[in-house]
Amino acid sequence: MINVTVWNEYRHEKTDEKVSEVYPEGIHEQLKNFLQEDFNVRTATLDEEEHGLTEEVLNDTDVLVWWGHIAHDEVSDDIVNRVHERVLQGMGLIVLHSGHMSKIFIKLMGTSCDLKWREADETCRIWNVKPSHPIVDGIGEYIELEKEEMYGEHFDIPAPDELIFINWYKGGEVFRGGVTYKRGNGKIFYFQPGHETYPSYYHPKVQRVIKNAVRWATPTDSTYPTYGNHQPLEKI
Amino acid sequence: MINVTVWNEYRHEKTDEKVSEVYPEGIHEQLKNFLQEDFNVRTATLDEEEHGLTEEVLNDTDVLVWWGHIAHDEVSDDIVNRVHERVLQGMGLIVLHSGHMSKIFIKLMGTSCDLKWREADETCRIWNVKPSHPIVDGIGEYIELEKEEMYGEHFDIPAPDELIFINWYKGGEVFRGGVTYKRGNGKIFYFQPGHETYPSYYHPKVQRVIKNAVRWATPTDSTYPTYGNHQPLEKI
Amino acid sequence: MINVTVWNEYRHEKTDEKVSEVYPEGIHEQLKNFLQEDFNVRTATLDEEEHGLTEEVLNDTDVLVWWGHIAHDEVSDDIVNRVHERVLQGMGLIVLHSGHMSKIFIKLMGTSCDLKWREADETCRIWNVKPSHPIVDGIGEYIELEKEEMYGEHFDIPAPDELIFINWYKGGEVFRGGVTYKRGNGKIFYFQPGHETYPSYYHPKVQRVIKNAVRWATPTDSTYPTYGNHQPLEKI
Amino acid sequence: MINVTVWNEYRHEKTDEKVSEVYPEGIHEQLKNFLQEDFNVRTATLDEEEHGLTEEVLNDTDVLVWWGHIAHDEVSDDIVNRVHERVLQGMGLIVLHSGHMSKIFIKLMGTSCDLKWREADETCRIWNVKPSHPIVDGIGEYIELEKEEMYGEHFDIPAPDELIFINWYKGGEVFRGGVTYKRGNGKIFYFQPGHETYPSYYHPKVQRVIKNAVRWATPTDSTYPTYGNHQPLEKI
Repeated sequence: MINVTVWNEYRHEKTDEKVSEVYPEGIHEQLKNFLQEDFNVRTATLDEEEHGLTEEVLNDTDVLVWWGHIAHDEVSDDIVNRVHERVLQGMGLIVLHSGHMSKIFIKLMGTSCDLKWREADETCRIWNVKPSHPIVDGIGEYIELEKEEMYGEHFDIPAPDELIFINWYKGGEVFRGGVTYKRGNGKIFYFQPGHETYPSYYHPKVQRVIKNAVRWATPTDSTYPTYGNHQPLEKI
Repeated sequence: MINVTVWNEYRHEKTDEKVSEVYPEGIHEQLKNFLQEDFNVRTATLDEEEHGLTEEVLNDTDVLVWWGHIAHDEVSDDIVNRVHERVLQGMGLIVLHSGHMSKIFIKLMGTSCDLKWREADETCRIWNVKPSHPIVDGIGEYIELEKEEMYGEHFDIPAPDELIFINWYKGGEVFRGGVTYKRGNGKIFYFQPGHETYPSYYHPKVQRVIKNAVRWATPTDSTYPTYGNHQPLEKI
Repeated sequence: MINVTVWNEYRHEKTDEKVSEVYPEGIHEQLKNFLQEDFNVRTATLDEEEHGLTEEVLNDTDVLVWWGHIAHDEVSDDIVNRVHERVLQGMGLIVLHSGHMSKIFIKLMGTSCDLKWREADETCRIWNVKPSHPIVDGIGEYIELEKEEMYGEHFDIPAPDELIFINWYKGGEVFRGGVTYKRGNGKIFYFQPGHETYPSYYHPKVQRVIKNAVRWATPTDSTYPTYGNHQPLEKI
Repeated sequence: MINVTVWNEYRHEKTDEKVSEVYPEGIHEQLKNFLQEDFNVRTATLDEEEHGLTEEVLNDTDVLVWWGHIAHDEVSDDIVNRVHERVLQGMGLIVLHSGHMSKIFIKLMGTSCDLKWREADETCRIWNVKPSHPIVDGIGEYIELEKEEMYGEHFDIPAPDELIFINWYKGGEVFRGGVTYKRGNGKIFYFQPGHETYPSYYHPKVQRVIKNAVRWATPTDSTYPTYGNHQPLEKI
């Protein structure tokens, strides 16, 4: 069974009533709720020791799901480097919503990962532009969210390996809202929905996408390439 | 269980002793031999009615494996169009070796698909350049074939969605020997090994790649997008 | 100086008053009007002999601009093959608006090139998602068209080599409205604006994009690769 | 005229006779020698103040060429961040040979950038696999270097935006030896040749590639996207 670790900053939920009404146990618990239907799920949060991401936990994680927002800076560089190394060695990584500005995502992307944003209770329609991809299995043509935070282009990311979703916002913007990357032995998926005051992680199609992404991101090959000095395989 | 149809031109084997020594029952039967360990496999050949690719057969096929060489022109355009439509609707397609010049591959690629070639009993080393990909699961750093036909760059294909393998040849050339494409709802994998006089399809790693590719190419999403006139989803 | 040939079907303008009011001399003449500020421009239309695309004309064309809509089927396969071959040999091709369903575009793409559409006088905002690209030089963050035909996803094209623009429509759809492809020695740019009843080709930024694209698509390398049997470069 | 800054670590040349015989004035001076035929060129080296890469110098640089090897760690993080920011704002970056392990390249790539290597005086043949690209203008099918350091796959980089060259080595390896990336407003080209004891930067085709790359990487669009809170463009 696939081992998933859901990591959540877990700050908004403790201090902001609007958030705790939507996610009373924390965003991580709601993510766990539906992921555990299919996977073996544990959670980890910022204020735990080593942010809950010990060597042991990471070595036992096939796919790490990441939600963070106001405390990106409090994540220690050592833990970021540890996660980074694990991704290159094969661990899947699913970065949600405001995680676009997390240290780990920025480190993996190499760009600023900045974007436009607006909280205005507006409709967001997430169009499936890659119908052959396993991440959109069962999703159909689009996902409609009555209210979601606007994230708009330009989104300063590398051209994705695969563009899966494009978001439409009522206020006039578009956004590459679902993108995949392969880095080293690892697979990465960024997915836009999940502002802390909206119930996006209760939406069946959002849940389905995240579940599909976990399956897609699970490591497949256990052999890490060898690097460094190399003897010739043929006579020179 | 995944339904695989192995299509073979099946001409060399009937007329060329050097080929029938390697593949006495035909290349398709050897492909079937190892694929049926994991999948539900049928075969089809050029000289059958409708080349064995009736509507019924194709509708019951998850992944089609294609080997052709000297008789590409004898494949009827109607059947090519039928396969093409099925690929866009989701059927996986694995094109092997000289299938690069098949009508169906050229139609899907939109380019000439031409390349350099040479039959010289030379070593071919197929390097894995995408270790995170499910197609290379269990393959390691490279596959070494003692003898394979040289296929060399420039290979006139679209930039692949994913470059999986790069081939090295003793005579001094390189080749993008494993490439993936997504087209419509379908997934396509081209793989270089398989000259008719060499036993490449008996090589365990070549078999493993083709099996992995079948799994990867299996359709995941049953919803075909709708096209044409579209009513607005928002008030204009 | 770069030699541009503007090809137009030139049918709507002769029969539909709404069109001839916008483009009294034909769409090709308006395209020529602004392109000739920077380039050496000729035009060609469907009803000319060989559709105006003789060997001589094509051999003297660096970049071909294509507009067609209701008469795609009347373009002869021979001419399509001739254009196709020239693109693979290096001629640039800029396909505009409804040209997405032209024979030449479909042949180059290998997919159905189908999409959703609607004529509803609605706002179209074309977002620049690749600010580093020469095609968006001087364009800024977006182009806003008061009225343009809606083209919506899913757009059945290969994943573009480069995604340049994403269109937003008031009615709720999105569209990959500017995409590049390299095929053989040639470069291709598809650009969405240009419904025959709207004045999009008078818009300064639309003009700027098309001019930039002509420069980008101009052939750079005169050496066509050699294909076929190849002697070894090293001792085998 | 395009302003190029050639940055060189400039250490090998001062201490290793085998290197100073090939590049008596330093690698940067040889790069400058041929680049100044077409561009406005200055040089900068590690041991200058701020490594010669002051704000002023970088603001006046269209394209930065980077050669480093044994002293990557001595490049200060502040300067790396400064270069990184300039690249995202549009400055072109050409990373040569052992620069694959420079801090700036690793930061932009987000991966380990590791590879296999060997110094064995062996033949390297650099195949052009993207004949339509301006970087290969005038290069033909391949560049042959009698002796070059072997760099072999797996090369731990993101899938390049464009794969331009694949290297063949006599010892049996292959390598993605010319790759492009767009990051933010900037363009990046990595090119393999240039081991310090071999005269690769005297080779006319290597020079031609680097010149072509400078032209390709020159900034085209002066508008940097705006990020952050964004007012709606449409009524919500």
